[in-house]
Amino acid sequence: MEQIIYDIERADPQKIEELKKYGSATVHEAIGRKGAMYARMNPLGPGMKCCGSAITVKMQAGDNLTLLKALDVAKVGDVLVVDNGNLEDEGPWGEIMSIAAQLKGIAGLVIDGCVRDSGEIKEMGFPVFCVGTCIIGTVKESVGLINHPITCGRAMVNPGDVILADEDGVVVVSRDEIDYAIELSQKRTEKEKRQVERLKTGESLLHIANLDQLLTQKGF
Amino acid sequence: MEQIIYDIERADPQKIEELKKYGSATVHEAIGRKGAMYARMNPLGPGMKCCGSAITVKMQAGDNLTLLKALDVAKVGDVLVVDNGNLEDEGPWGEIMSIAAQLKGIAGLVIDGCVRDSGEIKEMGFPVFCVGTCIIGTVKESVGLINHPITCGRAMVNPGDVILADEDGVVVVSRDEIDYAIELSQKRTEKEKRQVERLKTGESLLHIANLDQLLTQKGF
Amino acid sequence: MEQIIYDIERADPQKIEELKKYGSATVHEAIGRKGAMYARMNPLGPGMKCCGSAITVKMQAGDNLTLLKALDVAKVGDVLVVDNGNLEDEGPWGEIMSIAAQLKGIAGLVIDGCVRDSGEIKEMGFPVFCVGTCIIGTVKESVGLINHPITCGRAMVNPGDVILADEDGVVVVSRDEIDYAIELSQKRTEKEKRQVERLKTGESLLHIANLDQLLTQKGF
Amino acid sequence: MEQIIYDIERADPQKIEELKKYGSATVHEAIGRKGAMYARMNPLGPGMKCCGSAITVKMQAGDNLTLLKALDVAKVGDVLVVDNGNLEDEGPWGEIMSIAAQLKGIAGLVIDGCVRDSGEIKEMGFPVFCVGTCIIGTVKESVGLINHPITCGRAMVNPGDVILADEDGVVVVSRDEIDYAIELSQKRTEKEKRQVERLKTGESLLHIANLDQLLTQKGF
Amino acid sequence: MEQIIYDIERADPQKIEELKKYGSATVHEAIGRKGAMYARMNPLGPGMKCCGSAITVKMQAGDNLTLLKALDVAKVGDVLVVDNGNLEDEGPWGEIMSIAAQLKGIAGLVIDGCVRDSGEIKEMGFPVFCVGTCIIGTVKESVGLINHPITCGRAMVNPGDVILADEDGVVVVSRDEIDYAIELSQKRTEKEKRQVERLKTGESLLHIANLDQLLTQKGF
Amino acid sequence: MEQIIYDIERADPQKIEELKKYGSATVHEAIGRKGAMYARMNPLGPGMKCCGSAITVKMQAGDNLTLLKALDVAKVGDVLVVDNGNLEDEGPWGEIMSIAAQLKGIAGLVIDGCVRDSGEIKEMGFPVFCVGTCIIGTVKESVGLINHPITCGRAMVNPGDVILADEDGVVVVSRDEIDYAIELSQKRTEKEKRQVERLKTGESLLHIANLDQLLTQKGF
Repeated sequence: MEQIIYDIERADPQKIEELKKYGSATVHEAIGRKGAMYARMNPLGPGMKCCGSAITVKMQAGDNLTLLKALDVAKVGDVLVVDNGNLEDEGPWGEIMSIAAQLKGIAGLVIDGCVRDSGEIKEMGFPVFCVGTCIIGTVKESVGLINHPITCGRAMVNPGDVILADEDGVVVVSRDEIDYAIELSQKRTEKEKRQVERLKTGESLLHIANLDQLLTQKGF
Repeated sequence: MEQIIYDIERADPQKIEELKKYGSATVHEAIGRKGAMYARMNPLGPGMKCCGSAITVKMQAGDNLTLLKALDVAKVGDVLVVDNGNLEDEGPWGEIMSIAAQLKGIAGLVIDGCVRDSGEIKEMGFPVFCVGTCIIGTVKESVGLINHPITCGRAMVNPGDVILADEDGVVVVSRDEIDYAIELSQKRTEKEKRQVERLKTGESLLHIANLDQLLTQKGF
Repeated sequence: MEQIIYDIERADPQKIEELKKYGSATVHEAIGRKGAMYARMNPLGPGMKCCGSAITVKMQAGDNLTLLKALDVAKVGDVLVVDNGNLEDEGPWGEIMSIAAQLKGIAGLVIDGCVRDSGEIKEMGFPVFCVGTCIIGTVKESVGLINHPITCGRAMVNPGDVILADEDGVVVVSRDEIDYAIELSQKRTEKEKRQVERLKTGESLLHIANLDQLLTQKGF
Repeated sequence: MEQIIYDIERADPQKIEELKKYGSATVHEAIGRKGAMYARMNPLGPGMKCCGSAITVKMQAGDNLTLLKALDVAKVGDVLVVDNGNLEDEGPWGEIMSIAAQLKGIAGLVIDGCVRDSGEIKEMGFPVFCVGTCIIGTVKESVGLINHPITCGRAMVNPGDVILADEDGVVVVSRDEIDYAIELSQKRTEKEKRQVERLKTGESLLHIANLDQLLTQKGF
Repeated sequence: MEQIIYDIERADPQKIEELKKYGSATVHEAIGRKGAMYARMNPLGPGMKCCGSAITVKMQAGDNLTLLKALDVAKVGDVLVVDNGNLEDEGPWGEIMSIAAQLKGIAGLVIDGCVRDSGEIKEMGFPVFCVGTCIIGTVKESVGLINHPITCGRAMVNPGDVILADEDGVVVVSRDEIDYAIELSQKRTEKEKRQVERLKTGESLLHIANLDQLLTQKGF
Repeated sequence: MEQIIYDIERADPQKIEELKKYGSATVHEAIGRKGAMYARMNPLGPGMKCCGSAITVKMQAGDNLTLLKALDVAKVGDVLVVDNGNLEDEGPWGEIMSIAAQLKGIAGLVIDGCVRDSGEIKEMGFPVFCVGTCIIGTVKESVGLINHPITCGRAMVNPGDVILADEDGVVVVSRDEIDYAIELSQKRTEKEKRQVERLKTGESLLHIANLDQLLTQKGF
């Protein structure tokens, strides 16, 4: 088996750009409540958002060599998605790697682990989604897997999946569902706009959401 | 048993306004170290604060219909206090519900669970206190309890209790203790001001707090 | 055994000032990946940083008398490092103590527990590193240990150790390693600057870090 | 509102006896995957099992007076179901209370907290389901709620619900679903027996469960 | 400061033997609800119990050299009490060390960490109280502290304190309170025997514990 | 990419049998402290042990279809090793699957999740290593991966790796290291036997382990 797969199929960059307009919660809801990572996955700094094609990385605990190699494999607009085993006891990603990623045009990092140099990363504005910060370093000795299917933040991620990450969390959209995701997110957003307008006229949310009838049926 | 109770007694709004001047830690200390929710309960954004009468909500896990109904039951100045079983795996509250709540004049939300659309909620400034953010949605099928006694963040909350929530945490004050809470918080605040003034003259905190004597007795 | 030790040896203040220029992750890495506290230890507010000599405090759970006494023992530039048993259920440090500490010129607080009055502390800018906020108060009855060796955030801390804490975490440097720590941190920083310059010319990080050869050996 | 409700409706004792023949996992599955408490709820000793009508108890943290009163309210065959807020830091139930419960013919205790005197309780064989053991005692000062709806182990429990607890976990069956639960559990058990017989003839489980077809459709 | 203290004062062995007759929960309650370790501390096998004088050990994470040295310092009847920082990621104690301890007549081990070779240790019956099992080994390079005050399982332990550990948990009794602990535990045990006898005559526990009057005062 | 890989290389069954004689802690130590799963992975019942070739399974959360298919793929002597994302909220494996596995001669199950029907599984003696029990069922709808590299219990597992699991934990040995693992485990076991014999003659463990010299050098 090849540990490192260099060529993956990616979604159309224009569509990725379009999907990025929506929030992760909206997209997750729109595609049928799928693909959400767990609640521990948070942006390193306020306002961080990214959307791109997943380069999947499974690293060995305590060893970030695979992560460095993944920087090489990734292309403009990609998001590195890293399975680090939910570890809180090391920070395998830091300032230099963020600079390298930003210079290459990589869209962001999603890791079910910690990072270090958080102050510098926030300053340069490179979008990082992780479970915390940790200054404990790692060795550079063994290679895991790049662009194989992985589990990250409890969600299964395939290489080339579209990753949308913002302040709320991270959602994984499979490549062949991106049109569908955009269409339904747009519809959902429009519906929500209409709901807000009706809310502003004084209508109750229960009525707007057609739930008052359901409640009446249940005897309330 | 009625699952939904519409009419509850509330504390005097002016007194609620007065209590809001104090911090949650001060009030908790003043009323005899009671009513504190656990440390996992945090404001969604910096500077959030609210004080109001509790509308208590016990929702079914994975189902936010009760929460929607509670928006209907709550009145101006109320705080929704929600028992969601300490769940981190769903976000039953989001942007639309926050808009609806804000339009109705609801003072805030306290939930021992997660919310979604955190960016939008922070922007609109609706005070939310929760244990995290999660984009995983819920169904709208079954009704739990509204305005029954609940447990939230390890504190017991009765409908109509006064809820004070700020950056430090959340404290529950029973309706018949609000005068007492205000009076003692004021006294405590004044005492602390005097302590700060004495600190500024160079006196030691041990001396100001009359603890040097205690330490001497103990042989230090 | 003396529970409270008043006189400890400290590192040279100028060297402490010099060490403070570096980040905690850099110093931890430079001295051979030692002395890092765990990832749960975070600054109370953004941008907080401190560096100073450790006054070590082991308090009794639920009792902050030792902490108050430690304010007395500490001198200008010291950092209080407190073993509170990883407790999340109390906030033994608050606004008044922060004011007292700031007035005395104490450099910061590192506690494997929670604090209260976080809004006020952030406003006054006193550097606090802790595992969360909690409004639950403590009694003032029994004295633990001051300036004995303690464990804090999983790291062993001796009185007089140099503590460097910033947004990334906390690192403990033993007094006799401070020269070494400064020297190696400086070298590491310069090396990283050169790496960034080479990154900007388009060189790959793998090449800059001499890892492409290692990968070739491994057959990649 | 009455804090203590003495009279509740209970399911037919013969039906409770019948339901007890099945395992908690079978019943949970049979009634449509509902009513399961969380995985942290375990029997105190091997082989413990109980089935009975729920006396629901919401106690104040650190105060077991309500639990003592509930011993008074409960009748032969009842199960005490206690909301202790998932607390691990106290043991509000011990040997004497177990003896009292056993003498009264109470069927068991389910508590989302800890107990003490575990050796003695195991010896006397009183079925206890809890999240651990803790020797820290409680006071006896304030009364919570008895026979109100509560949340225990993340499941909502109404007074009179039928509780089935065994080595696997705890399931809550509402009173009006007990016939249905027995019938479907029996069917499921019979179906599983037939499956085991077919397994013994060498048939594959995929074939027995009609899943090979589904897999073929999916291209496997 | 001496890292290793060889001579400590111990309680009278006969009194230790006497205290061992009581359960940890009884003693903890008798001495005024003090000295309990947290609920995560459990016996490795069923029925384990020990009582003895504490040899306190603070080891470096990932390094069990101090533990080996402590085997040397401990005498017949002592209990090793080890501060391992609540670590679950290593097993610094195993079969050989248990054999060595048993041959020396050491009464037991209490560690806020994990052990390995649990099968063998259970077979030989050496009493171990810990937070789990882990096969990950440690190095033998640096020396921590022996017979200094430590924190273990959230309780402060001084060298020579009497440690009583059984299936329920672990309680720490200071040397000068052992007479008092025995006397009050005996009284408590006798009182509980009388309570059980009264329970058997059909009296209610509320009445036996004089709580019915309190409940009447509160209006129940 | 093929989601299901049917043919994998396995280690020599005789060697697997030989490795099974040693404990997981011994083997982990012998091969250079590698391959240990985390401490949360425990046997379902006392005395459970298994050793075999890994069939690796990555299931979708909440869906055990892949697990059922893996029963089909596995052969006599194999161990199913399942990546379930450390989930505690479902029990995707139960009695029927255990019977099917036992009938096929499968050696055991290792899952970083929960199982149900624990009583029945313990009775039939099928070795299961998991993080707990949970009665919450799963659907059977989507297929994950079989015999791809996975992460389980924080260890990376490749198909065909040798899995040794006992009361202490689980260790993963790569196929090409099995000879080495047996040889070194045997040596380590013999060395330990000699150590025990010397312990019985009254020699100190520090001396036997050649550590007294190290301590002398360090000034103890």
